[in-house]
Amino acid sequence: MKPILLLSKHAVTYRNLFEKAGLMIVEPPDLPADTEIVFGEPGLIRAALPHLPNLRWAQSTWAGVESLLDPSLPRGYTLTNARGVFGSLMSEYVFGYLLAHERKLLTRWQAQQTRTWDASLTGTLKGKTIGLLGVGSIGCALAKTARFFGLTVRGYTRQSRGCPYVNDYFHEPDLPAFASSLDYLVNVLPGTSRTRHIVNAKLIHHLPPGALFINVGRGSAVNETDLLHALENGLIAGAVLDVTEQEPLPENHPFWQAKNLLLTFHTSAPSFPEQISAMFLQNYQRYLAGQPLENIVDFEAGY
Amino acid sequence: MKPILLLSKHAVTYRNLFEKAGLMIVEPPDLPADTEIVFGEPGLIRAALPHLPNLRWAQSTWAGVESLLDPSLPRGYTLTNARGVFGSLMSEYVFGYLLAHERKLLTRWQAQQTRTWDASLTGTLKGKTIGLLGVGSIGCALAKTARFFGLTVRGYTRQSRGCPYVNDYFHEPDLPAFASSLDYLVNVLPGTSRTRHIVNAKLIHHLPPGALFINVGRGSAVNETDLLHALENGLIAGAVLDVTEQEPLPENHPFWQAKNLLLTFHTSAPSFPEQISAMFLQNYQRYLAGQPLENIVDFEAGY
Repeated sequence: MKPILLLSKHAVTYRNLFEKAGLMIVEPPDLPADTEIVFGEPGLIRAALPHLPNLRWAQSTWAGVESLLDPSLPRGYTLTNARGVFGSLMSEYVFGYLLAHERKLLTRWQAQQTRTWDASLTGTLKGKTIGLLGVGSIGCALAKTARFFGLTVRGYTRQSRGCPYVNDYFHEPDLPAFASSLDYLVNVLPGTSRTRHIVNAKLIHHLPPGALFINVGRGSAVNETDLLHALENGLIAGAVLDVTEQEPLPENHPFWQAKNLLLTFHTSAPSFPEQISAMFLQNYQRYLAGQPLENIVDFEAGY
Repeated sequence: MKPILLLSKHAVTYRNLFEKAGLMIVEPPDLPADTEIVFGEPGLIRAALPHLPNLRWAQSTWAGVESLLDPSLPRGYTLTNARGVFGSLMSEYVFGYLLAHERKLLTRWQAQQTRTWDASLTGTLKGKTIGLLGVGSIGCALAKTARFFGLTVRGYTRQSRGCPYVNDYFHEPDLPAFASSLDYLVNVLPGTSRTRHIVNAKLIHHLPPGALFINVGRGSAVNETDLLHALENGLIAGAVLDVTEQEPLPENHPFWQAKNLLLTFHTSAPSFPEQISAMFLQNYQRYLAGQPLENIVDFEAGY
């Protein structure tokens, strides 16, 4: 048994889960110099790194680990992130908002407020085309759900073609062909230097005016000025942003009141401690057995 | 070839579709006494029935055919309804509203209006239990979608057990056991004397306070006074009604402003003429070939 340094805002919950599983836990202010394993949020791990010269493995409770990717930070340990647990949550979020968009849920609700019997026709998902920027485990889960609802799926990736639910793959420099005639564009890319501002005026230019954009990846993927311009001028039908460059969003940010824009405050796929803990415990058994860990992050690729 | 009497508010659309398929069409004011086949909305067919002594087959463009079930009306013809085409539309509607409920879509939207960063946790469909009142072709499509999202499915039917996506079947008098501890209750029953007011105080009493009720069947299935009482007193979490006893809803009806109630004005599964027409053309070929028709309505059962 190896003690685990627990660095989380939800330490009480994780402590209970880990103690039930019989693990030995260390918590701040203790930061033993011989710590081999740390578990927690990337920002808290980053702050502790200088005190952990013997770190061998860090398990992030989140999928996004940008704060640990800074090249000036130590990389002499294995970093694993939370992957594979968010696919079904993200599917619920993305398809919930796609359905609300097609079924004009907010318009219907507003009609009700004015006692208006608004029986106008609504749209349907079936037969539409969705484009996924990024097809990792979350993107592939979205693709599976899309196919269930009868959509055609385009996937934009660096190289991979591993998801069987994607109808057509696109790679750099095929972004225009990927975007043209999409009904929905969903970003699930990790935040790296390559993905920064990938959703910009150039990409939006290739989207049809009826397209809906959803960002469940990282705020850095979007050029916010370009997106605002597109929304205010009806270049696309709308956007649903779970993530933004600054979070929480500053009170004077134009996104709050932008036309056809919905904000959801980084809640699309919460890390439920039961799921994250179960994933960690499996990896911990692998660690003890000397087997390769799952969900290892490539520091260079950034995911 | 047999001429078809076309009685529809969407006659222009259907005429085009039928003419493309090479059919011969008759339209009002012509109501030839030798008409064998009529196609259209149930209410319009009902009005024409006294003029059609030689009617052999009536194809309804809708699933609900209550207006043709009155025992005082002629029944010397075969009535077929629109079935099998609404499953995917109904799935989109029901799961759109279930997801909006779990993801607190309206609450988030309201937070945005007041520039409030509301990152509170939301719920998830996965692991919940849905109860379907009625498991015909629509109910079974809902069950399939429910299983896709990781729900447990209970089905309440007269006798049938034909849908493989239902985990547990319940029949009369097992309504209390069916309702207890449901997260979602969805009514898809046809409007018959047996299903009238099946959703009443007694049934609601067995639902947990967190339950959401969705009605995509018939307004007559709900005791509206009982439902209002339940909503106003928090006996259930909310309701989404696509159908009501009176449609359009009278302007002074308490549903317009009832607590946690969403109205959607009978738009959950529109009859798209292309789909209905394709279904009819198949049946028409059967008719000409002397084969049994599909989707025959049992006048006694009412569906």
